[in-house]
Formats: sequence, C-alpha cells, structure tokens
Amino acid sequence: MRADNKNVGATTAVPRRPALRSTQAGAASRWLLKKLYQGAGRPPARLSLWDGTEAGAAGRAALAHVRIHNLSTLLRLLSYPDLYFGEAYMSGELEVEGDLVALLEAVYRARAPFRGKGFRNRLADGGLTRRRRNTLEGSRSNIHHHYDLGNDFYQLWLDSEAMQYTCAYFPQADATLEAAQVAKLDHVCRKLQLQPGDTVVEAGCGWGGLARHMARHYGARVRAFNISREQLLFARERVRAEGLEDQVEYIEDDYRNVSGDCDVFVSVGMLEHVGTEHYPDMAEVIDRVLKPDGRGLIHSIGRNRAIGPMNAWIEKRIFPGAYPPSLREMMTIFEHRDLSVLDVENLRLHYASTLRHWLQRYERNADRVREMFDERFERAWRLYLCGSIAAFNTGQLQLFQVVFNRADCNVLPPTREQVYRAEGRG
Amino acid sequence: MRADNKNVGATTAVPRRPALRSTQAGAASRWLLKKLYQGAGRPPARLSLWDGTEAGAAGRAALAHVRIHNLSTLLRLLSYPDLYFGEAYMSGELEVEGDLVALLEAVYRARAPFRGKGFRNRLADGGLTRRRRNTLEGSRSNIHHHYDLGNDFYQLWLDSEAMQYTCAYFPQADATLEAAQVAKLDHVCRKLQLQPGDTVVEAGCGWGGLARHMARHYGARVRAFNISREQLLFARERVRAEGLEDQVEYIEDDYRNVSGDCDVFVSVGMLEHVGTEHYPDMAEVIDRVLKPDGRGLIHSIGRNRAIGPMNAWIEKRIFPGAYPPSLREMMTIFEHRDLSVLDVENLRLHYASTLRHWLQRYERNADRVREMFDERFERAWRLYLCGSIAAFNTGQLQLFQVVFNRADCNVLPPTREQVYRAEGRG
Repeated sequence: MRADNKNVGATTAVPRRPALRSTQAGAASRWLLKKLYQGAGRPPARLSLWDGTEAGAAGRAALAHVRIHNLSTLLRLLSYPDLYFGEAYMSGELEVEGDLVALLEAVYRARAPFRGKGFRNRLADGGLTRRRRNTLEGSRSNIHHHYDLGNDFYQLWLDSEAMQYTCAYFPQADATLEAAQVAKLDHVCRKLQLQPGDTVVEAGCGWGGLARHMARHYGARVRAFNISREQLLFARERVRAEGLEDQVEYIEDDYRNVSGDCDVFVSVGMLEHVGTEHYPDMAEVIDRVLKPDGRGLIHSIGRNRAIGPMNAWIEKRIFPGAYPPSLREMMTIFEHRDLSVLDVENLRLHYASTLRHWLQRYERNADRVREMFDERFERAWRLYLCGSIAAFNTGQLQLFQVVFNRADCNVLPPTREQVYRAEGRG
Repeated sequence: MRADNKNVGATTAVPRRPALRSTQAGAASRWLLKKLYQGAGRPPARLSLWDGTEAGAAGRAALAHVRIHNLSTLLRLLSYPDLYFGEAYMSGELEVEGDLVALLEAVYRARAPFRGKGFRNRLADGGLTRRRRNTLEGSRSNIHHHYDLGNDFYQLWLDSEAMQYTCAYFPQADATLEAAQVAKLDHVCRKLQLQPGDTVVEAGCGWGGLARHMARHYGARVRAFNISREQLLFARERVRAEGLEDQVEYIEDDYRNVSGDCDVFVSVGMLEHVGTEHYPDMAEVIDRVLKPDGRGLIHSIGRNRAIGPMNAWIEKRIFPGAYPPSLREMMTIFEHRDLSVLDVENLRLHYASTLRHWLQRYERNADRVREMFDERFERAWRLYLCGSIAAFNTGQLQLFQVVFNRADCNVLPPTREQVYRAEGRG
C-alpha cells in the first residue's frame, strides 16, 4: 500500500490508471478515491477508506489523514465536495487526523489555479441560490439561525472585552484578542475622525460593543440597529451597567427602516447578510441619513471575484443567506448614490489571526459546547472556524474596510497619517 | 438692469417669466441667457451678452463675470455646454473675469443634485464615444496628441525635480511641489515595500522619474514602458546623466507587449488612457508578468460613477481617448485575474493641490506658452488646469491608488503603519 501510494502523491503530475484488484468492489472504491484525490487538486494529505484502501501523500509528506467511513460518503464527496465534506465531517462519517487548517489551506491552494469552485460544485450550487432571500422576513429568520444561538455559547470563545464577532485589528502580531478587538474599534473611530457630540447610526451592531466604545471614548451619540433579539438583550444590559443609556440607543429593527440623520454611518460585519440584490436599499439608507458633511465606514467579508454563492456547507449550516461580495460588487453601493470612496483596507490576515484566537478558546471549551448542543454541532463549528482561517490565509476570503463620504465633502484629513500616529501613541 | 438682475440671482428658486422688451431680438436673447443660467444650476456668477443683456448674480454675490460675445456662442452653449464652454473660452468668444476655478466649482456643485451631466450633454456625448479607440495604433495617436507637445512646454510648469505629470502627495499642506512629487514617489515605493534587487515593470512611465527614483533610492531594476517618443528622449538623457543605465531601461512599446517577469508591477497615470474595453488586456499583462510573490500598484484618475465619456471638451482638445473609470470599473481588472486588492487610497485633494501649483507656474509662463503655440492654446490649457482643480475639489474626479497582489500572497505587512512611520522620519 505504502509503496503504491507514492505514485499518486503530491508531486505526481500525471494520473495513473488504477490496477485491477482482487475484488471489483475494491477496485471501484480505489478508483473513486483517486478521483476524489485528483479532484481536490492532489493536496499533501493521506486519504483512506473503510476497507483500508488509501490514496494521496504518505508519511511526513501528509499534513493530515482523512478517513472516509462508508461508500455513500465517498460518493457524496465526489458529487458535491463543497457541501458534503462539511456534512460528513459533522456527522463523523469523515474524520481528519492532523492539521485541519493546513489541510484546508492545501486544498484551497491546489484548487486556485482552476480559478473557481470546480464544475461539480458550480452545478450543484445552482440549486442553492434561490433559497434564503434577505427580505425583511427572510433576514430575520437568517439572522436568528446564527446570532440567536445563545450569548452563553459566544461568550465561550469571543473576547471578554467587547464581545466582538468581527475581524480584530492587530497593531502588533502578538497582541491579545482583547487588545486587538479594542484596537479595531479605535481603528474604525480614527478612520471616521469621530468627534464628541457626533451622531452615529450603526447598522447591525452585534452585541453593541462598537456603539458603547464610541460613546465612552469619543463622546458620540449612537443609534444602533439589530434584528437579533439575543444580542440586543446583552447589549442593553451592558449599556445600563456602564451608565451609557443617555448616549446609546439599541433599536430592534432592520437597517432598511433607519430614519433620522447622522454625522457618521457605520456598519461592521452586516453587509455579508444584506445580499447584492439589496445593495441599492443599503445605498438609499445611507443617502437618506448621512448629513452633507457625514462620514461612513462599511466593514465586510468579501472575495476577489463574484463566483456565485459562498461555500455551500457554510451557507447551509452556519450562515444562511450570507454572501461575501467582491470589491466590485461592494462598489455598486457607493456608485448608486454618488458617494466617494476614500479608503479601502484589506484586513484579511487580521481575520485569520482573530479566528486563530477564537479557535484556541473554542477548543478549550469544546466539552462545554458538546454539553450545550451536541457532538455534531461541536464538530460543525470547529470546521467553520478552521475553514475560515484557511480561506483568509489563502485569499479565498478578504476583509474590506471602506471609508466613504458624499462627493462634495472634504472634511476628512487628506492623508491617513493621523490614524497611525494615534495608534503609535496608544 | 442691476435691479432686475436680483430676481434671477443665486437665491431665487422659481424662474420668472421674462418680460417683453423693446425688440423681439433682445427679448429672445434675454430668454436664452436665463435658460443658460438655469441650466448651469444658477451658480453665483454674472452672465452678460454682447448687447448688454445680463442674468445671474450681481455685485459681490458674483464669483465671476462671464461675457458671451455673440449669438452663435450662446446657442452652442445651450445645445452642448460641456463642449462649447471650452470651445468658446478657447476662441475668446466667451471671456471670464474673476475666479475661474470658483466659477467652475460652483457649476459642478450646482449640477451635482441632478446626478449627472444633464440631458443635453448626455445626448450630445453619444456622438463622441466611438471616435478615439485605444487600439495599439489608436493609443499611439492619442498619446502623441498630448504628451508629445514638447518637453520645453511641460518644463514650464511641472516640477523641476522629476518632471511628474501625475498627482503629487503632500505630507504637509505647505510642502513645495518638488517635495510633494518626491514624497509621492516614496509613498508608492513604501506601499510596494520596494527592496534592493527587486525587478520592476512600469507601464506608462512619463518622463521616467519614478523609474529613476526606484533605482537610485531603493536599488531596484526597472523596465519602463512608454509610447511617447518625446518623453522617452528626455528620460533616456536623464538616466545617462545620472549614471543609472545599468538599472533602468526605457522601452518604447505598448503596455500590451510587456513580457518577462517582475517582483513589482506599477502604473502611475496610464490607466486613464487604457479604456475599459481593454481592462482585460491590462489584467492579462499583470497576470503574465507578476511573480507569485509580486506586488502591484495602479494609480489613476477616476470617478464616483460611470456616467459615460469624460468632459467632451477635455476629450476633444486635451486628452483624446481618455476615460476616468469608477472604482467599480477599475475593480474588473483585479477580479478578472483573481488578484487581491489590499489597499485603495483616494488622493483627490492632493491632485487639487498639485494642479494649483501647476496653474501658478503656468500663469507665470503664460507669455512663453503663447509664443510657443498661440493664444487659443494658452487659454485652452488654462481652462483645463482650472477645470481639473474644480473637478477634484468638488468630487467630480477622484484619484485612486490601488495596491494589489495575487490571491495567495501574504508578503506585504498586515498593517499600513510602516508607510507612515517612514514618512514621519523622512
């Protein structure tokens, strides 16, 4: 086995025709396993089946060992890998020994030269796209699915400082998660040149950390919108405990219903849930509320290219209705209402670091997660965290922070030097 | 006259029906002048005709006084203001007393709420779009028209340090033009983390200042492409005088013919001449030459929105074939080849400052320009410089500097702090 394996290892460029084995069944599953391995782009991993059949890299060349426990899993993986890798990992029909992040990075890298998801994934994706619309009602259901899992659950692995469930900012690589999340809040406020007395509209406020930070440290008055009830419960409790009720109002409503006006419009980690068909709504909300001299910032996961729905398993199990836009797609928001984009920063490596911290805490609390939910859930969320690290590290996902204002507004400083001067002092 | 004028001043919201005058001709021209004033968005300016008829703001409310010398100019201005304002200014059939920049800013601002160029301009623009294609041959002719006007001419008003005919970077508002142009070169090099021994491809090198700067101050080896012969003559003379021939090669060829590979791809002020239909060519050139760990930067004039051809007069008289893309349109380049955009900086206010410096020097040398060309030319270039200042100040034009690399490349520092630390020290 071992000797034979070398021929289909990571460095072999030309597929070998499989030799016939003692039984037809064995030969068929071996052939299918090789097909699977080739389809994954020949990553440096070892694959094995329930009957001991193996393919892929051997020994130290293998970053991980993927065990597939039955034929139906193997067939499903061949038909729609993007969905069924996750499904099988979650159910335990597929197990991974070794470095899951490194394995996924290798698969993403191997697939990159083909510039897409592969034919089978694209074909199968077609069935997904119409399902989870972000209408007012649809958004409520989609957001409930993810964000209302219980604050106890998120507290197990998010930062204790501000409960930020978005990309942190690491001024130094070795910053703690807590420090990096606070640095992110300041990074956002500095880019916006937030001033005492500024009125802020925040679209999608999570557990409300940014709103409280803006109020406490910058003297701003914030109206923060969210449709996740669990998150709002937490946010309102915190704002009372911190005595900031006069400055911060948490409003349970959809971003499309935002009214009034503001000096600053900010949205961190909501655009992923808006959907490109609603970008004109987003633009109209901004145009409706932003004062002539107002500044805005949108922070969102994105991609290099618009290649259809996001990973099918993530969409099904983790983030229904989510869609990470390409920067071109994001730009349609600003173009729609003649807004000037002043600054775009891609923080994808910061998201990979953030996720590493989350994963560490998650692993420390895995027993607790199993108690709160079950083993399937616990495995699903590990895969989601690991897959996200791999995606940001290999450029499958990006994190775009976009600063904008109206076309004829020149209030922000002409250089970005002040953002970094302040960070150096901090 | 004066008393009557107040009624059509900048603060009057409802147009008044014109009173009949002694002659029908006088009434007609008065009516047309008011139409022109309304069409321009009622800017705070005074308009007057050859027969003494006036409209618009009076006294100190008027930033400028626009004199129209004959009926055919008035009719042309009404039919296609974007083109014929420039034509008439150039021929002297229209004259402006007072602050031309402020006048143009007021017109741009007044027009902004209509979110476009106005019906008549759009209709008339239709005839322009097919004319000046940027095929290999077309580009040569378009570039020759502008950049081969003679180095003596550009030396009258560009910086003496590096002859940069692109947006400078002002670390402080009161930097000299020379200092700001050198700061721009360093800003670009720092964003790219240019290292000794790096190989650079520069697409569209102007008079070659960036290439020489990269060689002298960063130890890079640069192949710089240009199709303007006049510029290349100057660049080659300078590189010999500075003893940098071993590091810098100036190549008379189109960007589409770039070959070989490089650590850095850079293009400052060329994309405006590429045309969106050739953006896939641009993407393919980058993809062909950029090494796996290569970094890239494109610096270009842009707009908030894709609203068709640029100003018709500029296209006809100054920049044939030019087109400033929206950021969305620019992004198609990177999306086409799965490149990751890491950083976008909008430097439009720096361009307004740069143009102010150019205009000052131009005015000091206006007599010399008239001697070299003629009065029409001298007026045309003044209008171009003033109009550009107004366009950048009011957000009609933007200046985008975009840093990118391949999807799976993580060589640039995760924060932009080093760019500013270096500038602080410099």
